[in-house]
Amino acid sequence: MLENVALAKNREWAHFDMNFCSNCGHAVQQKIPADDSRLRYVCPQCETIHYQNPNIVAGTLPVFEDKVLLCKRAIEPRYGYWTLPAGFMENQETTMEAAARETWEEAEAKVTLHSLLTVINVPQINQVHMYFLATLIDGEFGVGTESLECALYTEEEIPWDELAFPTVKRTLKRYFAGRKEGKFPTHVSDAFREPREIDFAATLGEDWVR
Amino acid sequence: MLENVALAKNREWAHFDMNFCSNCGHAVQQKIPADDSRLRYVCPQCETIHYQNPNIVAGTLPVFEDKVLLCKRAIEPRYGYWTLPAGFMENQETTMEAAARETWEEAEAKVTLHSLLTVINVPQINQVHMYFLATLIDGEFGVGTESLECALYTEEEIPWDELAFPTVKRTLKRYFAGRKEGKFPTHVSDAFREPREIDFAATLGEDWVR
Repeated sequence: MLENVALAKNREWAHFDMNFCSNCGHAVQQKIPADDSRLRYVCPQCETIHYQNPNIVAGTLPVFEDKVLLCKRAIEPRYGYWTLPAGFMENQETTMEAAARETWEEAEAKVTLHSLLTVINVPQINQVHMYFLATLIDGEFGVGTESLECALYTEEEIPWDELAFPTVKRTLKRYFAGRKEGKFPTHVSDAFREPREIDFAATLGEDWVR
Repeated sequence: MLENVALAKNREWAHFDMNFCSNCGHAVQQKIPADDSRLRYVCPQCETIHYQNPNIVAGTLPVFEDKVLLCKRAIEPRYGYWTLPAGFMENQETTMEAAARETWEEAEAKVTLHSLLTVINVPQINQVHMYFLATLIDGEFGVGTESLECALYTEEEIPWDELAFPTVKRTLKRYFAGRKEGKFPTHVSDAFREPREIDFAATLGEDWVR
């Protein structure tokens, strides 16, 4: 139970086991509802089906002149490693609002958003990461409460071996590749840690990654 | 209570009021946790914070020759109106897998996915809609259990006044505009129904919509 609380607090795993119905308080059961094909938590008393779905992590790649703004994490996971400002999208927000808010919270930076740079599926933790290309307004920034420090780095200066997450590294790589080409199309990809066995009735061509 | 069950079942509103802690069964309270700025459901007994976040709706725009595959909805909301195959992304899936699965479930169609055509924020119902451009393999399709019928339409034949959702109409418009230009870049936009008062510390430039 305490472990669940800790996991929920650091937001790394947003979905955990459910014991009781959040509507009526009765103990829930796991079963496949009618007209469904997946195991869900269902309440035998009030019949509520408790769906659990992936979360969006929204962030920015903030640019000023030839440099990118990175934040050194003051929280777990990956305390002390460098990241792009990003976090869980909240209800009633748009993805752009979430990305801009996180940039303000983690780096006290106001940004202008440009294009959607990356969409990276992280199915092993039920997340989709979305990073927007952004520019710092007047080059100003501070240090948010979740950061130890924030700093502007050129491509060569970036601490590539001290980045917090693979999705951050991939997004930075896409930005610098885009800068060489002079364009920043949205890049969609998957971050797989291990082989999975999901059987879905479709053929995914290799050309969907643009 | 029954109303909540009905809403959960048709999945139009995935987040509803919470009464009891799903971890320990105690009655929850609404409060702003330490190091947070938003009202959350929190359990006073086991201290679990119950975050609620937006859902992704993933779908495809399936093309065969000069036609697009549409599905006539056999379920509420918008029973009898035409839609692109789409639905809630599930845990352990990627957005592409979710889009392909929904296309199979609603239209019994196997598709090859190409680019991400639209990302449309729908903050009033805490959703983000993502549509992928896809091609029907061999032009084959059927009728899924959630559809009354499925059919291929040219641009002129599409029942524009009988489309189920604004995000479907916008995605179709983007596809036909892209077909004229010969390219299909990802288009990010917001679907707003009413003015909102969200104050976030950022300036969103108009050029982020590509």
